[in-house]
Amino acid sequence: MALPGFRDFYPDDCAFRNAIFAKWRDVAQRYGFVEYDGPPLEPLDLFTKKSGEEIVTQLYYFKDKGDRDVALRPEMTPTLARLVTARHKDYKKPLKWFSIPQVFRYERQQKGRLREHYQLNCDIIGEAGLEADIELIALVIDVLRTFGLTEKDFVVRLSDRVFWSDFMERHGVPEEQRYAFIQAIDKSEREPREKTAEKLGPLADEVFSILDQGGASERLDTVETGLRHRGLHDYVKRDFTVVRGLAYYTGVVFEVFDRTGEFRAIAGGGRYDTLLKNLGGVDLPALGFGMGDVVLGEILKKQSKDHSEIRTADFYVAIADELYRPQAMALVQKLRDHDDWTDYPIKPMKLGKQLEAATERQASYICIVGPESLEGKVQLRMASYKGIKVVPIDRIFDYLPIENWTSPEADASTS
Amino acid sequence: MALPGFRDFYPDDCAFRNAIFAKWRDVAQRYGFVEYDGPPLEPLDLFTKKSGEEIVTQLYYFKDKGDRDVALRPEMTPTLARLVTARHKDYKKPLKWFSIPQVFRYERQQKGRLREHYQLNCDIIGEAGLEADIELIALVIDVLRTFGLTEKDFVVRLSDRVFWSDFMERHGVPEEQRYAFIQAIDKSEREPREKTAEKLGPLADEVFSILDQGGASERLDTVETGLRHRGLHDYVKRDFTVVRGLAYYTGVVFEVFDRTGEFRAIAGGGRYDTLLKNLGGVDLPALGFGMGDVVLGEILKKQSKDHSEIRTADFYVAIADELYRPQAMALVQKLRDHDDWTDYPIKPMKLGKQLEAATERQASYICIVGPESLEGKVQLRMASYKGIKVVPIDRIFDYLPIENWTSPEADASTS
Repeated sequence: MALPGFRDFYPDDCAFRNAIFAKWRDVAQRYGFVEYDGPPLEPLDLFTKKSGEEIVTQLYYFKDKGDRDVALRPEMTPTLARLVTARHKDYKKPLKWFSIPQVFRYERQQKGRLREHYQLNCDIIGEAGLEADIELIALVIDVLRTFGLTEKDFVVRLSDRVFWSDFMERHGVPEEQRYAFIQAIDKSEREPREKTAEKLGPLADEVFSILDQGGASERLDTVETGLRHRGLHDYVKRDFTVVRGLAYYTGVVFEVFDRTGEFRAIAGGGRYDTLLKNLGGVDLPALGFGMGDVVLGEILKKQSKDHSEIRTADFYVAIADELYRPQAMALVQKLRDHDDWTDYPIKPMKLGKQLEAATERQASYICIVGPESLEGKVQLRMASYKGIKVVPIDRIFDYLPIENWTSPEADASTS
Repeated sequence: MALPGFRDFYPDDCAFRNAIFAKWRDVAQRYGFVEYDGPPLEPLDLFTKKSGEEIVTQLYYFKDKGDRDVALRPEMTPTLARLVTARHKDYKKPLKWFSIPQVFRYERQQKGRLREHYQLNCDIIGEAGLEADIELIALVIDVLRTFGLTEKDFVVRLSDRVFWSDFMERHGVPEEQRYAFIQAIDKSEREPREKTAEKLGPLADEVFSILDQGGASERLDTVETGLRHRGLHDYVKRDFTVVRGLAYYTGVVFEVFDRTGEFRAIAGGGRYDTLLKNLGGVDLPALGFGMGDVVLGEILKKQSKDHSEIRTADFYVAIADELYRPQAMALVQKLRDHDDWTDYPIKPMKLGKQLEAATERQASYICIVGPESLEGKVQLRMASYKGIKVVPIDRIFDYLPIENWTSPEADASTS
């Protein structure tokens, strides 16, 4: 058994996972993002510096044999900050970087809750303007669109952390109460109003009116207009309950949910202009999002949108008699050198069984290697087509693909 | 700084690594292998059961918060054994499975020695015949050939563990001395003959004559003949010094080295028919190899064989005046929806600067969005060709690719 909360990937699961990775990569690259990666094991303080000592309760951490405090990465941003700080001068700004790390959290086990997942991380570093926010949000939308999901399936809830900072400033909320205030807004959707009202005190009514009717944010106006120009406006909705749990966001923030409300967040992110500097790194504005493979996978499965590439065999080389195995194996090698997926009987088998095996593998072509092989020829068949030809092995690729091969005369040809 | 022995993958490094992964996958699939994966963290006893308690000195292991002894995987085979044992009935034999895990060993730090690497693992499970050995060795050869390496660059040293078992049996080497005997042969290449002779005792001369002149092995005869049929015989050499350090091999074993002898082993593997059962799992014959990304990467770099896919931008959308940004962004979205990598100025920029940016990204096409965009048209240029056309945005893809677009009349057209 795998450890609780860890997944095994049998071939079907692995194909499903890899199909998600392939689409993630494809869309990120289409937006001009380049891939990076870092170690899954990092010095513990890389994470506590960002998230405080409390994060330790959720980490896989230990002392290594060199007496270093180390931890499995629970997220990618600290590693990104470390990499960018060390070499930002080597790159033109803005950096548009993505990664697909596996990340680890020791959370109390809940039904279906895992202790690892893969996470697409896309970040733009070195650009303070709102066009970068628009670009990032367009990307998160297009990542989901590429899986066949539409505005009927998911929504990006947009919010503005500065809006609430300004609000608290304007209403004189004391510095030490601000964290709790933001937390109350964050939880307001999942708690009865009375409870939230209690936490918010005299400002409750005003907050509720903003949550219900929206609030003014020039930032969000600009972002929404930018998305409208790209034809992506139907995918977003202003929602000031979104504040993002993490303390470090400084501007536009967003969370992506399925429209049914059945699943946890698909993705989340926003602008964190002060984080790199606060971590002791370079002072560059930055923004990014993370999207896990688990919730996305659940939604795709529910919608029967499995994008696994079901690759079927190109050739099955059947051996009419073991006498001809040498010729058959030379042909197998020739086909594989041509980058064709080629299978053959790994042990002696009756021809009928071999043809069954070819069908199971859905081989596009079947070669039967018999006495003709002594003259450099082979029987070539198409699985989807009844024709058979005896063709010179040297020139086998001239007889492909099937489309070139449909006239009855051609079928009758024997060389 | 990353932990000692761990690598950061900046975009160039990541592209280099991913190119290796892509070729690994491609060749394995061409041979009909399917991909699986498992958790990087496993119960500690999964590894000690196979390799004994001594392995612990080389492991990253710790107690998790649930008081479980856990370890970062140092190799993939125990995970494979676990997966296959649990579900072998769901699959036709033989299974041909591969994986590309990152594996971890805490070794004393040596120059250039890492504590993690990625490892291509290919295994065939459920086939006892030697054709499976041939198939596996052909695969390891083809994996290296696909990187452009030839028989001048590397050699597969073939050996037979049964040959030495039989030899020891025949000469009455006592059971308790056999491990040391095999170890002495394993080390013989790197030690003075006198030292090896001392360890081998009275059998030294006979062993040396085998090491120098080869020995008889019907198994290897069959394997070599099979590889000859595939045209791969020049890549292998019989070498009875190869015994593989691990105690569990039961038949043909092999190690792959570069011909210069400058690097550590590129790959190694062999048949381990009793391992799955000995681990408490299913009783199926099995064989496999592992190939790391580090030594392979060093050899490819030395030979300037970098297979990174240098993807360049398809389009750069330049904005003649900020007035037209909305039209430009609609075009950017259209191009990206068409799966084209499209870049644009993320902030207002002079047109000259934008064209420089397009050149930097080696964009194949440049669109300049100006006043024509109000009538649904855009200037389209090819970076590699001086022509410019004003084309309807709706039909932009009709004007591509450049090959269709070379007559002077066409160039002069304005719609």
